[in-house]
Amino acid sequence: MNYKLIRFILGWVLLLEAGLMLPALVVAVIYQEWSGFGLLSAMGFCAAAGLLLTLNVPENKSMRAREGFVTVSFCWIVMSAFGALPFVIAGAIPNYIDALFETVSGFTTTGSTILTDVETMPHCLQFWRSFTHWIGGMGVLVFVMSILPLAGGGNVYMMKAESTGPSVGKLVPKVRGTAGILYRMYIDLSLMMLVLLLLGGMPLFDSLITVFGTAGTGGFGVRNDSMASYNSYLQVVTTVFMILFGVNFSFYYLIWKRKFKAAFSMVEVRAYLLIILTSIVLISINIYGMFDGVAETVKQAAFQVGTIITTTGFATTDFNLWPAFSKTILVMLMCIGACAGSTGGGIKVQRILILVKSIRNELDVITHPHHVRKQKMDGHVIEGNVVRSVNVFLVAYAAVFAISLLLVSIDNFDFTTNFTAVAATLNNIGPGLEVVGPTGNFAGFSYLSKLVMIFDMLAGRLELFPLLILFSRSTWRK
Amino acid sequence: MNYKLIRFILGWVLLLEAGLMLPALVVAVIYQEWSGFGLLSAMGFCAAAGLLLTLNVPENKSMRAREGFVTVSFCWIVMSAFGALPFVIAGAIPNYIDALFETVSGFTTTGSTILTDVETMPHCLQFWRSFTHWIGGMGVLVFVMSILPLAGGGNVYMMKAESTGPSVGKLVPKVRGTAGILYRMYIDLSLMMLVLLLLGGMPLFDSLITVFGTAGTGGFGVRNDSMASYNSYLQVVTTVFMILFGVNFSFYYLIWKRKFKAAFSMVEVRAYLLIILTSIVLISINIYGMFDGVAETVKQAAFQVGTIITTTGFATTDFNLWPAFSKTILVMLMCIGACAGSTGGGIKVQRILILVKSIRNELDVITHPHHVRKQKMDGHVIEGNVVRSVNVFLVAYAAVFAISLLLVSIDNFDFTTNFTAVAATLNNIGPGLEVVGPTGNFAGFSYLSKLVMIFDMLAGRLELFPLLILFSRSTWRK
Repeated sequence: MNYKLIRFILGWVLLLEAGLMLPALVVAVIYQEWSGFGLLSAMGFCAAAGLLLTLNVPENKSMRAREGFVTVSFCWIVMSAFGALPFVIAGAIPNYIDALFETVSGFTTTGSTILTDVETMPHCLQFWRSFTHWIGGMGVLVFVMSILPLAGGGNVYMMKAESTGPSVGKLVPKVRGTAGILYRMYIDLSLMMLVLLLLGGMPLFDSLITVFGTAGTGGFGVRNDSMASYNSYLQVVTTVFMILFGVNFSFYYLIWKRKFKAAFSMVEVRAYLLIILTSIVLISINIYGMFDGVAETVKQAAFQVGTIITTTGFATTDFNLWPAFSKTILVMLMCIGACAGSTGGGIKVQRILILVKSIRNELDVITHPHHVRKQKMDGHVIEGNVVRSVNVFLVAYAAVFAISLLLVSIDNFDFTTNFTAVAATLNNIGPGLEVVGPTGNFAGFSYLSKLVMIFDMLAGRLELFPLLILFSRSTWRK
Repeated sequence: MNYKLIRFILGWVLLLEAGLMLPALVVAVIYQEWSGFGLLSAMGFCAAAGLLLTLNVPENKSMRAREGFVTVSFCWIVMSAFGALPFVIAGAIPNYIDALFETVSGFTTTGSTILTDVETMPHCLQFWRSFTHWIGGMGVLVFVMSILPLAGGGNVYMMKAESTGPSVGKLVPKVRGTAGILYRMYIDLSLMMLVLLLLGGMPLFDSLITVFGTAGTGGFGVRNDSMASYNSYLQVVTTVFMILFGVNFSFYYLIWKRKFKAAFSMVEVRAYLLIILTSIVLISINIYGMFDGVAETVKQAAFQVGTIITTTGFATTDFNLWPAFSKTILVMLMCIGACAGSTGGGIKVQRILILVKSIRNELDVITHPHHVRKQKMDGHVIEGNVVRSVNVFLVAYAAVFAISLLLVSIDNFDFTTNFTAVAATLNNIGPGLEVVGPTGNFAGFSYLSKLVMIFDMLAGRLELFPLLILFSRSTWRK
C-alpha cells in the first residue's frame, strides 16, 4: 500500500476543499453574516492540513487497484469530516455528529436532514450546505486526478470508484479528457436550469440552491416545505431538470457528437424513461381525487416520481399521505434509482437491466442446459465479470440494507420508518416515509443510527465496494 | 416437450392424492362427521381424474431438464387445486379461492390462514389441512418417481426441483435409494416427536396435528391461539423439534452412518445453530421485562426464533407487540430460513453462506485483480455455476418480492402488513406482522392479493425457478 501517495492525494483534496468554500464566503460577505468566520476558520483548517500533507511529494507515484479504491473512500470521509466544520464552528449545528450527518448527506447528494428549521440558517451556511451537493454530484477525485498525473492506472480505478454504474463511462480514452467533457456538460446543464428558474421569477439565491440540489440530485432546499410553495412553472422546470440529471451522461455526449440515433437507442435511457412514464400514470390514477383536476394530479405525480427515481428528494406535497400503492411504487423507485453515469443514486437502471437479463438467462440455462449464450446490451456483449459483479452488488446491497435496518431498529421507531430511512440514505434519496417523510426529518435518531446512516450514504454514493474493502483483511495484507 | 409423459405423471400424483385423503376419512368415521362426505367426493374426483390421465401409458418415457421442472410445477398446482375440494364441498370454506389459498398454504408448508376461527372446523378437515403440511414437507414427486422408472435423467431434475437448497442432496447415487432414506428419517423423527408430545399429556389428535405442522415446518394448529395455551413442556418439545426439522437431512444421514465428525463439522448446520443462538440471546435481552423471569423470557424467545427461522409459524405469544429490534430480527430470520435439504423454507442458510462468500470473493477480486480463487464449502470447491445460480436466485427472489409487494399494496393496508405478508408467504412462514401478525390472518386481502400470495407460496416452496420457467418463452419453444 502506497501510503505516501494516498496522504499526498488527501492533501490535495483538502486544498481543493478550502478553495471550494470560497463562494460560500463571498455569500457571507454579501449578506454580512458573522457565520462567515466559521467558514473562514474551516477554510484555514482545510488549507493548513492540506499544506501539511502535500509538503513531501512522494517519489513513487504508481497506484494499484486497491490503492485507488482506498484513496477514494478516504477522500470522501476526510472531505466530509472537514466539510462539517463550518456548521459546528459557526454554531448552526453545534453537535459534530449531526453536522457530519448533514455534510455527508450533502456530498453524497442524499439530502436527508437533521434540521427541523432550515429557514433560520444563515445564507452562507445554506449555500455551503447545498454547494456540497453540486460538488458531490460529479465527484472531486476525477478533478484532482486531472491535476496530478499518476502512473500505474490508479486513476482509472479511482474514476471507476467515484463514478456511478457498473461500467466506467469512458467516453474518450484519456481520463483527463473524459473528466473535462463531463464537467462541461454538468456546468452547461446547470446554467441552463439557472436561467430558466430566474426567468420564472425565483430569487437568485433560491435559484442557485435549487440548481445545486437538482444538478447533484441532492435535494437540500431553502424552505421548510421544500418546493411546495414555489409556483407551478418552477416546479415543472425542476421536474424536467431532475429527470435530465438522472440520465446517463453518455447520452448527452452522443447528442453533443450529433450521434442522435445512437443516443436515443440507448436501452438504459429508454428503460429509465419508460419506468418514469409508467409510474406517473399508475400514481396519477391511484391519487386521482386528492388534487384539483388532471393537470395538477399529473404534475404532482410527475414531480414526486422524478424526485424519487433520480434520488433528488425535493417534495411538493406530503406523499406520506398517499395510498399504499403509490407509496410502494415510490419505495421501489428509491431502490431502482437513476441511470448509470448520472449524478443520481440507487441501484441504477443499468444494473436492474443486467439483473433482469440474468434471471432470463438462468431460466434459459435451466430449460436448455447445453446451450451457450451471452448477455448483451446496446448490441455489445456484457462481459462475464461485469454480470458477476452486478449480481454480487445486489448481494452486498441486500446485506448492507439488512444490517443497517437491524441497527437502526434499536431506536424502536416503526418498521416503515426504519425501512425507508435506510432506503433513503443508502440510495441517496433524502426523505422516506412516516417519521422521515417529506415533512419529517432525521433529528430523532440516536447517534448510533446516525453513524449507520452516514456509512450508508457514503456506501451508496461510492456504490458499496470501495467502502466495503476497507473492512476486508485482504486489502491490508502486504 | 413430452406432454404425454407429463399427463401420465400428473395422473399418478392424483391417484396418490386420493390415497392420501384416506387417513382424514378415517378421522371422519371416528368422529362421525358429515364433512367426511366432502372428503369422499374429493377422493372420487381425484381418483377419477387420476385414472383418466393414466389410462394411456406413454411409450416415450424419456424426460429432459425442462420437462422435469415443468412437471413438478404442474403437479404442485394440480395437487393443490384438487386438495382444496374437501373444504369447498363440505362447506367449511365455501369460496374456492380461499380454499385454494388454505390448501396451497398447507402443501407448501406455509401455514398462513384465511380462517378466523380454526376451532369450529370439523376434525376430519382439520386433519386433512394439517396432513398436507406433512405431505408437502418431503414432497410427493420423489415418491412417485420411486414407483415410475423414467429414462433420460428427468427424475434427477424433478428431485432437484422439489428438494430445497442450492445443490441436490444426493446422499446415495440412486434417486430411489435417497428418497427411501429421506422418508425413513422423516417418519422416525415424526414418531419420536409424537411419543414425546403424548407423554406430555397432549391429546392424540392435537399431537398428530402438531407433529404434522412441526415436521413439515408448516404451522397450522388446532387452537386459535396456536401453541400459547399448551404447557411449557409441550412448547419446549415443539421448539426443539422445529429446530431439528430445520436441519439439513444430510446431517442425520451422517449421524445414522456414525460419521459424527463429518456431521458436526457441516458448516451450514453450525451457521444455522449459531444464528439461532445469537437471535435468542439478542431477543431475550431486548424483551426482558415483558415476561416473568429469565427462563420464561428465554423460552418465549427460543420458541419464536425457532418457529420463524424454520419457517414453521406456530406462536406462543403475540410477537407483534415486541420492540422493533426483536421484530426486525424475526423479519430477517423469515428471509434467511432453514437449512438446505430440510423441510423448511426461506432463502436457506447454505445460500446465505454462499452469498456472503461471494461478497468476500468480489472484494478480493477488486483489491487483487490478478489472483485466481475458488469458493469452498465443507472442504469442497463450490462450482462456478452453483455460485452463479445462487446469485441469480437472490435476484429472482428480490424481483418476485418487489412485484408481489406492489400488487398486494393495492389493497391499501399499511407497508409493514404488506411487506411481512409477502415475506411470510414467499418464505413459507405463516404469520407476519400487524394485520397478518400471530393473532391476525389473511382473510382481509382481496382475491388478487390472495392469488399473488398463492403464487408466492408455490414459488417459495419450489425455490422460484421451476415456477418461473412456466413464464419463459424458451421453455415452450420447440
